[in-house]
Amino acid sequence: MVRRKTSELIVRQRQPDNREGLPTIFNAPMTPTEWFFVRNHFDVPDLDAQSWSLRVEGAVDRSHCWGLDDLRSFDQQTVVATLECAGNSRARLGDRASGVPWQQGAIGTAAWSGVPLTQLLDEIDIDDNVEELVFVGADRGRLETADGGSVQTPYARSLPVEKALSDDVMVATGMNGEALIPDHGYPARLVVPGWYGMASVKWLVRIVAITGRFQGYFQTEDYATWEYDDDLAVRRPLSSIAVKSHIGSPIDGQRLAAGQTVTIEGFAWGGEGNIEAVEVSVDGGDTYNDADLIDSPHRHGWQRWSYTWAVPKNPGETTLLSRARTDKGEVQPADHDWRKGAYAVNMIRPVDVVIKPSE
Amino acid sequence: MVRRKTSELIVRQRQPDNREGLPTIFNAPMTPTEWFFVRNHFDVPDLDAQSWSLRVEGAVDRSHCWGLDDLRSFDQQTVVATLECAGNSRARLGDRASGVPWQQGAIGTAAWSGVPLTQLLDEIDIDDNVEELVFVGADRGRLETADGGSVQTPYARSLPVEKALSDDVMVATGMNGEALIPDHGYPARLVVPGWYGMASVKWLVRIVAITGRFQGYFQTEDYATWEYDDDLAVRRPLSSIAVKSHIGSPIDGQRLAAGQTVTIEGFAWGGEGNIEAVEVSVDGGDTYNDADLIDSPHRHGWQRWSYTWAVPKNPGETTLLSRARTDKGEVQPADHDWRKGAYAVNMIRPVDVVIKPSE
Repeated sequence: MVRRKTSELIVRQRQPDNREGLPTIFNAPMTPTEWFFVRNHFDVPDLDAQSWSLRVEGAVDRSHCWGLDDLRSFDQQTVVATLECAGNSRARLGDRASGVPWQQGAIGTAAWSGVPLTQLLDEIDIDDNVEELVFVGADRGRLETADGGSVQTPYARSLPVEKALSDDVMVATGMNGEALIPDHGYPARLVVPGWYGMASVKWLVRIVAITGRFQGYFQTEDYATWEYDDDLAVRRPLSSIAVKSHIGSPIDGQRLAAGQTVTIEGFAWGGEGNIEAVEVSVDGGDTYNDADLIDSPHRHGWQRWSYTWAVPKNPGETTLLSRARTDKGEVQPADHDWRKGAYAVNMIRPVDVVIKPSE
Repeated sequence: MVRRKTSELIVRQRQPDNREGLPTIFNAPMTPTEWFFVRNHFDVPDLDAQSWSLRVEGAVDRSHCWGLDDLRSFDQQTVVATLECAGNSRARLGDRASGVPWQQGAIGTAAWSGVPLTQLLDEIDIDDNVEELVFVGADRGRLETADGGSVQTPYARSLPVEKALSDDVMVATGMNGEALIPDHGYPARLVVPGWYGMASVKWLVRIVAITGRFQGYFQTEDYATWEYDDDLAVRRPLSSIAVKSHIGSPIDGQRLAAGQTVTIEGFAWGGEGNIEAVEVSVDGGDTYNDADLIDSPHRHGWQRWSYTWAVPKNPGETTLLSRARTDKGEVQPADHDWRKGAYAVNMIRPVDVVIKPSE
């Protein structure tokens, strides 16, 4: 069993244990494990590495099993990926939003190492008519449902087969150069770069091949949004992270000296899209100017950006804003779209600063 | 426009208009239109027969349209079918159940006339990979969603293609020998015998052929239940009516003379199954005896039954119960299964009677 590290996180819910990162995570390209948000739906399962196994079953020629040693026999890869909880920033929506009241910190960027899922699945003869793979965690429990009832279920999420077979989806056993800790899925978890964290099933023990679309709790009642097919409202599981940016510095309420030069900086991320531009406003949104995009070696990691601001000579107050855009044309919106419920909260976030007389 | 008839119903919700039948509906094999429960999700749309049309679109070779005169050019059929609202008897669940608080009367049996859907669809070249047909009503509006948001949508429900093409599904223009009234879908509605009423889309104006499974509001958030695929809780649209029976006579609280002979009678219905047996208990459920099944000429209409009871000679109180079983082996349960939320409430219903001294 891996030793549990000291954690530097803000508790948002005690039962189950849910904690988010401090604002300082937005000042570093990589998020240390002890600063990385923890999202649990049930108690953390106490899994033993020796007896752990990952089984593939369902619509396959024959079911198949790997232990941890089996995983180590495959070529290993390391992918730097930003994971964001689908409910991150929900607290900005106020009382109308139900769920864990995340501020900004249910996000982090780590180096994940393990085996590409496609390598594992090469060993399996999956039926031609399979549409989805369901990934099942060892965590389970009872949940109250919106209709007044309750269900007992493990945590489970599906991926369309095409997505599951894409290069970047992996079964990870390591995080930031060490073995996963229990909070992050020890001994093995799925990592689905570009998708909200709910897809990256922790404590992965089972993969079920199915011929239809999975209708599990965590993609119908939870982690789903309303969209429109023509005029028909339809429920869809959440998938790719919506484009978003965050000003790491200055911080809200910071006092800046009039007439000085200040670097406004932060990160932007866009799920399956790549960040094409980040614009910054220093006048509360009246005008925007392009920020500089800095070193971006990781396809699935967040994009660092900065903007050099000549602070006005007159004291007063102003609001800083950042707005990101992806190469798929997605732009951060000004307001929340309630068809998404209390998920995918990516509207532009204001940072109010005070311009103080220069000394 | 058809004249609106006087209605003999109990109001359960005013906006939208929802009314249920009086207990006397359980004393007659057929439910007169003015005694037939009314279930609306939005305001009743004001449709004009001349301009009404039903359009088929989506994954079809080319879209197709029929007016009312076109429908009349097909062979007409009349089917006696029992429609029950999926939320009928919900009031028995107490405060935990949300939704319209139906007592027992959101059910009725009528003669529906119109065109078998399969005849209409014979005119359409539907793509081979179509899985479902979505039936869309002209009624529409905004709905609050469980996740704190809201959606604007018409009423819409889907059927798997195989079900839609079964003989008994029809586009009805008549009810009990007259044109449909607005409350029941004028000028045309779907009727899906054996399924809960939500499938029988009123004010039908559009059929959309789709290659996947429809995830509309009325089959994910509403009118859906939790089931288990192995240990995985999954959301499924409601479909076939669950087996159920109702004692029409005697009624709750009725006083019966000791030593006399009383006929206990009522109806039983079982969705896509046929009623194979109805058992009656006159001792609060300690023992059950077979009731007689009476004339059942209608495959999709409810089954009348009766049981001759020699009332005990000693005064006191007792509880009468009826329990139905279908030829598919479904038996009415003693308790509600909350995986079904506040739907498909079909547990055995007690009728308490008083045995008074004979005069």
